[in-house]
Amino acid sequence: MRPVDVTELPPIEVRPRAATVRHTMAAAGLDALLVSNLSDVRWMTGFGGSNGWVVLTSDTLTLVTDGRYGDQAVDQLTATSAEGDVVVERTIGEIRSRLVQLTAGHTSIAAQAQHLSHAEWSALEDEIALQPEPNLLRTARRRKDAAELARMQRAAEIAETALADVAPMLTDEPTEADVRDELEYRMRRCGADGPSYDTIVGSGPEQSARPHHRPNRRRIVEGDNVVIDVGALVDGYHSDMTRTFVIGDPSPEQQHRYEAVLAAQLAGLAAVRAGASSVAVDGACRSLLDERGLGDWFVHGTGHGVGLDIHEDPFLRWIDDTELAEGEVVTVEPGVYREGSGGVRIEDLVTITADGHRSLTAFPKDSPCLPSRPTT
Amino acid sequence: MRPVDVTELPPIEVRPRAATVRHTMAAAGLDALLVSNLSDVRWMTGFGGSNGWVVLTSDTLTLVTDGRYGDQAVDQLTATSAEGDVVVERTIGEIRSRLVQLTAGHTSIAAQAQHLSHAEWSALEDEIALQPEPNLLRTARRRKDAAELARMQRAAEIAETALADVAPMLTDEPTEADVRDELEYRMRRCGADGPSYDTIVGSGPEQSARPHHRPNRRRIVEGDNVVIDVGALVDGYHSDMTRTFVIGDPSPEQQHRYEAVLAAQLAGLAAVRAGASSVAVDGACRSLLDERGLGDWFVHGTGHGVGLDIHEDPFLRWIDDTELAEGEVVTVEPGVYREGSGGVRIEDLVTITADGHRSLTAFPKDSPCLPSRPTT
Repeated sequence: MRPVDVTELPPIEVRPRAATVRHTMAAAGLDALLVSNLSDVRWMTGFGGSNGWVVLTSDTLTLVTDGRYGDQAVDQLTATSAEGDVVVERTIGEIRSRLVQLTAGHTSIAAQAQHLSHAEWSALEDEIALQPEPNLLRTARRRKDAAELARMQRAAEIAETALADVAPMLTDEPTEADVRDELEYRMRRCGADGPSYDTIVGSGPEQSARPHHRPNRRRIVEGDNVVIDVGALVDGYHSDMTRTFVIGDPSPEQQHRYEAVLAAQLAGLAAVRAGASSVAVDGACRSLLDERGLGDWFVHGTGHGVGLDIHEDPFLRWIDDTELAEGEVVTVEPGVYREGSGGVRIEDLVTITADGHRSLTAFPKDSPCLPSRPTT
Repeated sequence: MRPVDVTELPPIEVRPRAATVRHTMAAAGLDALLVSNLSDVRWMTGFGGSNGWVVLTSDTLTLVTDGRYGDQAVDQLTATSAEGDVVVERTIGEIRSRLVQLTAGHTSIAAQAQHLSHAEWSALEDEIALQPEPNLLRTARRRKDAAELARMQRAAEIAETALADVAPMLTDEPTEADVRDELEYRMRRCGADGPSYDTIVGSGPEQSARPHHRPNRRRIVEGDNVVIDVGALVDGYHSDMTRTFVIGDPSPEQQHRYEAVLAAQLAGLAAVRAGASSVAVDGACRSLLDERGLGDWFVHGTGHGVGLDIHEDPFLRWIDDTELAEGEVVTVEPGVYREGSGGVRIEDLVTITADGHRSLTAFPKDSPCLPSRPTT
């Protein structure tokens, strides 16, 4: 695979996003917004540094950052055709003073209470009357545009290329850490900015049954389930995929559980469409596993949105019902886990369409066999 | 290098830490402490998952986490001989109710205002009267014990092994990203849990002059300065090191700047000892660069503490003076940066002793040459 060249991807155009947010601000009666969550800052401006604030008003957009990032900020805002100015300050105190100055004269100012620390909120509130930002950015970021989808598609392809390259070594008794190392190295060589999250390689009767297992020096041997959860990061955007392998011939129990999880995943995918309820998608997976007697072992939600964050709105779970919409990107990832006899998870990344979904994941999943072995 | 086997490192013993914190709590008039910062949670218990709270009172310690981490939490608290119990809850709301229950009957309760989001703080404050935790944990974590130092030493050795392996390829016109990929892969193969932070490889007249440059597809060529800032993560503990290479024979200007930064770094190191002022260490570097006419290009602080976080107390900079103490671990990393003519940074990681320091970094720094070339 030729390494990703981001200049060959469609450019991110952030200018319409500020207009979208201003529209919802007006509807919420806000006349200024302080954006501190770095994924939101990036979504609004293209700026990818580790310290930045956006101050948005009805007619201005200002990115405030520190001296480490001045040149980068100007470059990135130019690349995304962002409106507005970059202001560089030296210390936290000077940044705070600038935020106060930029919001002066506004009366209804929101900041991100779920992101800002209480200490930082309190320091700002000494000088500005703040109200919690009512999830305008989280909501606005749900729907992905073509440039965002192109990055996530490319990230998904990179992770699949890496997994296809590495899967044959699963029969050579590697450690979990070996598999993780090779996956992450290959994703980088394909041009990923890095792994999308800490790659999970969980093997055997205990460790495959821990949904968030951290790979260790356990050797993968004949008879193991191996749960591999891997994604790549491309220009800020994440991918997310899980496949479960069985080393050698599956036992009847392994086969039963694999088929049940696959059936549940297909049922979940079949329920995904614009206008569907997130709780209904979760319920489709859960009902199938209940029917097969495995419902009690499905210990997490069915999926989550993916974009600039690996976990973002909309969430597909049994609480917080929300209506899915065209252009949103979600995972569908049921699993069953039982310490002592192993775990299975199957996860695809899909974008929602008017009448269903389009999968960003193409890696085979029809059987728990290794791709290098002939499938039955 | 044989991969790290953590079972061969001295075990982390967390039990004395709770006693240390209880002592400072009592001195601060607190009778309960809610710890939410995950590095603090890990330092107190050994728990390394992504969701956990510690509730500490004068006679109890409770770790509250969610269902993903129940087994791991019990394993890790057993491994570190932590006192106290693990409680598993399913949702954020249930965790919050448990925190309320565990602090019931206490009157002076602190939580971490610099870590908790304002939204989470407000939700808790509806049920518990909270005051900001007065940096008890940040302060307690400054001094490292032998088990912590052993992990950081091993992390430093891994980063140096990787850099020594990779340095010869710098003359083969690799891209910055190539160098980063090979460094991170080799650190993993040596048993690191991962890079300590996003590895920096900044090359040439522009990109070596950006202190926090993110490696890209620029090729490294003859005449370049190459700033490589690389560390490894071992069992939660970080290392941190920077070396600057010059590809080919240094120009007089490159030589001058390298020697000035090296002299500044040695002056900084000479000022490090138990009882020294952090501002004085920063000043020692800064004065040297001022003398050489480069002071205006030294745009960041001289160093920072390192441990479970890559940046932690004590900070060595021109503000926030603090007295250094034996057993603390800090970086000393002056640099000069000028877009158009490049940057130089030299950084060692040292632990502070009664009469000076012991370096955890052994990689050569006496000249800006490649290690594979004979030094002059």
